[in-house]
Amino acid sequence: MKLSKELVLQATATFGTPTYIYDETVLRSSFSELRHALPDCVDIFYALKVNPNLSLVKLIRSYGGNTEVCSLGELEIALKAGVAPQDIIFLGPYKKPEEHRRALEVGVFAIVVESETELRKVSALAGEMGVTAPVAIRINPNFSASGSPWKMGGRPTHFGIEEDTAIEHFGEYVKLPNLNVRGIHVYNGTKILDAQSVYDNASYILDLFRNLTLRYGLDMTMVDVGGGLGIKYYENEKELDTYQLKQLLAPLFETFHRQFPKTRIILESGRFVAGKCGALLVTVDNIKENHGKTFAVTDGGTNCHGAAAGSGQVLKRNFRIVHATGSTGAPLREYHISGPLCSPDDLLGRDVRIETISEGDVLAVTASGAYGPTASPTLFHSHGHPAEVIASNGRLFLARARQTALEIRDSHTDVPVSEMLGANVVSLPTAAAPVAQVATQRRLGEILRVVLKLPEHTQVSAESHLRDDLGLDSLTSMELLVTLEDQIEGFFVNPDTITPGHFNTVASLAQYVDAHSQPVRAEQGRSEVQHEPV
Amino acid sequence: MKLSKELVLQATATFGTPTYIYDETVLRSSFSELRHALPDCVDIFYALKVNPNLSLVKLIRSYGGNTEVCSLGELEIALKAGVAPQDIIFLGPYKKPEEHRRALEVGVFAIVVESETELRKVSALAGEMGVTAPVAIRINPNFSASGSPWKMGGRPTHFGIEEDTAIEHFGEYVKLPNLNVRGIHVYNGTKILDAQSVYDNASYILDLFRNLTLRYGLDMTMVDVGGGLGIKYYENEKELDTYQLKQLLAPLFETFHRQFPKTRIILESGRFVAGKCGALLVTVDNIKENHGKTFAVTDGGTNCHGAAAGSGQVLKRNFRIVHATGSTGAPLREYHISGPLCSPDDLLGRDVRIETISEGDVLAVTASGAYGPTASPTLFHSHGHPAEVIASNGRLFLARARQTALEIRDSHTDVPVSEMLGANVVSLPTAAAPVAQVATQRRLGEILRVVLKLPEHTQVSAESHLRDDLGLDSLTSMELLVTLEDQIEGFFVNPDTITPGHFNTVASLAQYVDAHSQPVRAEQGRSEVQHEPV
Repeated sequence: MKLSKELVLQATATFGTPTYIYDETVLRSSFSELRHALPDCVDIFYALKVNPNLSLVKLIRSYGGNTEVCSLGELEIALKAGVAPQDIIFLGPYKKPEEHRRALEVGVFAIVVESETELRKVSALAGEMGVTAPVAIRINPNFSASGSPWKMGGRPTHFGIEEDTAIEHFGEYVKLPNLNVRGIHVYNGTKILDAQSVYDNASYILDLFRNLTLRYGLDMTMVDVGGGLGIKYYENEKELDTYQLKQLLAPLFETFHRQFPKTRIILESGRFVAGKCGALLVTVDNIKENHGKTFAVTDGGTNCHGAAAGSGQVLKRNFRIVHATGSTGAPLREYHISGPLCSPDDLLGRDVRIETISEGDVLAVTASGAYGPTASPTLFHSHGHPAEVIASNGRLFLARARQTALEIRDSHTDVPVSEMLGANVVSLPTAAAPVAQVATQRRLGEILRVVLKLPEHTQVSAESHLRDDLGLDSLTSMELLVTLEDQIEGFFVNPDTITPGHFNTVASLAQYVDAHSQPVRAEQGRSEVQHEPV
Repeated sequence: MKLSKELVLQATATFGTPTYIYDETVLRSSFSELRHALPDCVDIFYALKVNPNLSLVKLIRSYGGNTEVCSLGELEIALKAGVAPQDIIFLGPYKKPEEHRRALEVGVFAIVVESETELRKVSALAGEMGVTAPVAIRINPNFSASGSPWKMGGRPTHFGIEEDTAIEHFGEYVKLPNLNVRGIHVYNGTKILDAQSVYDNASYILDLFRNLTLRYGLDMTMVDVGGGLGIKYYENEKELDTYQLKQLLAPLFETFHRQFPKTRIILESGRFVAGKCGALLVTVDNIKENHGKTFAVTDGGTNCHGAAAGSGQVLKRNFRIVHATGSTGAPLREYHISGPLCSPDDLLGRDVRIETISEGDVLAVTASGAYGPTASPTLFHSHGHPAEVIASNGRLFLARARQTALEIRDSHTDVPVSEMLGANVVSLPTAAAPVAQVATQRRLGEILRVVLKLPEHTQVSAESHLRDDLGLDSLTSMELLVTLEDQIEGFFVNPDTITPGHFNTVASLAQYVDAHSQPVRAEQGRSEVQHEPV
């Protein structure tokens, strides 16, 4: 993020915090850097899972990016962003039937099929729809990307078909009806910062393509070498050397392209394209000392940015956090920078050395364009999705509005309690009955205080005897019953059912009241329960 | 969950999967069990952060539960559920100004204040609003709950004011204007399964209340002893012994209550109340062998249920996963049960021994009523929030509808690219220009194929010479220009600027086209880019 102080101040004044801000010039230059590192024969597919923000996808498309989607939601976003279906591939280890259907309807370039079961399903569906389904087979290879801290291939995962099986059965795959097996897809790892590892990975996959082509005499039109290009997050990391990448990849892909000129070479990238352009802006609400640590408590934590707070990491390392409006020149101090959640690990940064923080300061968590809000539990504590803003040409564009409290509230269906509990509301299961009674006992206690004009110091409990302890007599018992009918909606005394035994204790009368109330009372009566001890 | 096979089948047929289902009888019995374990002088406050589902909150209220909220969203849900403001407390280490304001407007029982900064803010705001703000001071004690695996007190966290500071300054707190300091709040840990630890914790807090009362001669009306009561998740755990809990807590609280009869004793509970009633239902889409493991791939994973997938845990342990429609009698087998995400750790369970699974089976992740959907990144891969359903009285109630793909798509603002890129769309930064050119080169390649009727095998690259390689002549060059004006919106040939040099290669002509297009072309032209190699 290289935004001016003015723009950051304008963003926080206009949209508040927590807010994600994406810098278009950085997005553009990241895309361009990758584009230049690859020969023209390679197509870049932006992975929406990294950040599906519609405006971001539109911008990436305007730079010439294609898209890789993993769900119907992502597919619809890509289409709305104006991406041509032929520039979309659809992958993921699970796809709903309606996802397959929609992908075939709009005509994506390929459905990346991740199991033999899926292959059969797509074949059948395409037959039913009267179309030929373009598919690629995702292979989990006998090979791991050495440079990836998070390997997806060469070990048991739920991705793809394992290499040996795929090679053995590929001849059958291409014979399945209603399918056009365009080629193969391998995605082997993520966060790769070593160009040689990207090369080794791509080279392995291109060889796999060659072998399958030779073995079965195929003429396939797609090879997806995955991606997994990383960005620098932590102090001890180095950015991927895209010059070295180009030196390695250009001859590799160009040779392949000469051999298979009709085969579309796809490289997927999400984090590398979108990661650097974004920052999460948070406001420091209060600063406090707590058992030897200084905390800067902010309005955005794990719920806005799970990755920065260390979700999914065994050892949490800090994203770079800076003063959003630039250096203040103040001396460095050390802080735990927390979010708003009631969990002790809601920390955006631990022991962060940063120029002295004051209450009201805006901090920026950098390198946050990838796996930000959509990878975070934004509804935790019902805080809701943060705002997302594009900064472009010195102007700000609201790309996704902050979710409001009322929107969150109204996302729930308003089912009446009486409907949920129905007729059974009076015949509660044995275990639960006493709960209702405790409530009724308290309500009854209050009414008794009024009717019997009890002195304030008198204790009223479930066991209090109505006559002996509280002084109820025949006159006041009539008044009590009338008041109960009056105050407890749905309760009516039935002279045939009431007995002197019911007037024994608070508990016994409460039981009678509960047993002779209509459902509406059971609900509304309880809502009136007062919780000051009776 | 103790639902019948019929109800589960009805739920999946009606609402699909992934779906959370909450069993009202279990919810009721959990609440009732806790209510019975506590003397009447203790009030239970349900913590909405655990599960803010509106229907669930309504049910808990109907049992006599009060609520603890942490955000404006949760406050609005509690109010809509019909909870009286006097039965709501509002806490959390960060609160927005509008949250303080709304809490005071509606008249919650107490705002639990977590820092001296917040105390000053609330005092000022109450003055401005002309009200007295009821507050409780959250203290981070010099004491840890020994039975909690996740300690919030007795160590540096962003919660509350540390004990020594609070004790020293309490006399000043109560003198602040516009405040009614009702009492104190301590929350020390979570997932506590040992009754003695709950007792030790409560006992410490009640003593703290006594000491402050004595030291400053106060007459406070609230003490919140936190909660943190756990439920059994894993094989090696034992449920909390509520009988033992009652034996320990009844005399403790009753003694306190006799000493401070006007002080409301609050115990918070979320997980214990709501945890056991819920299950996540997922459908098995495909089963596959992968590098020595058998995977059952389902439609709901980390995005629906981060806790079950091990978010926030160093060592992942399995929630109990069962066949949702009951035992099948099939032999046991071992599976990795995965979700749909493209991350290798998207596993609901590792090495789960379960009766043989078939494709289409519905599995239930049990003990999932707490920290389910709202604690999960439901927008990851844009899958969206799962459905939530209440099962009550043998009937099903949709409590929260599944989020749809179009809702997800339309949560983004639709900002036109031309507006974001503005006038700068034609004066792209140097680094990005070649990206546009690559796109134009490809488009040009296609048009050349048509205009020059090139044989299919002819290679067209950026370096192709228009005359020597592709056979462009004076006649076809005029046709080419007309076609370009026709096909590329915003492009017009200016006879003053075009030179024979521009007709050298595909790249040189593309450069001319780019330089002489209006902004609208720059955007729309790119959207038409075809990515098949030219």
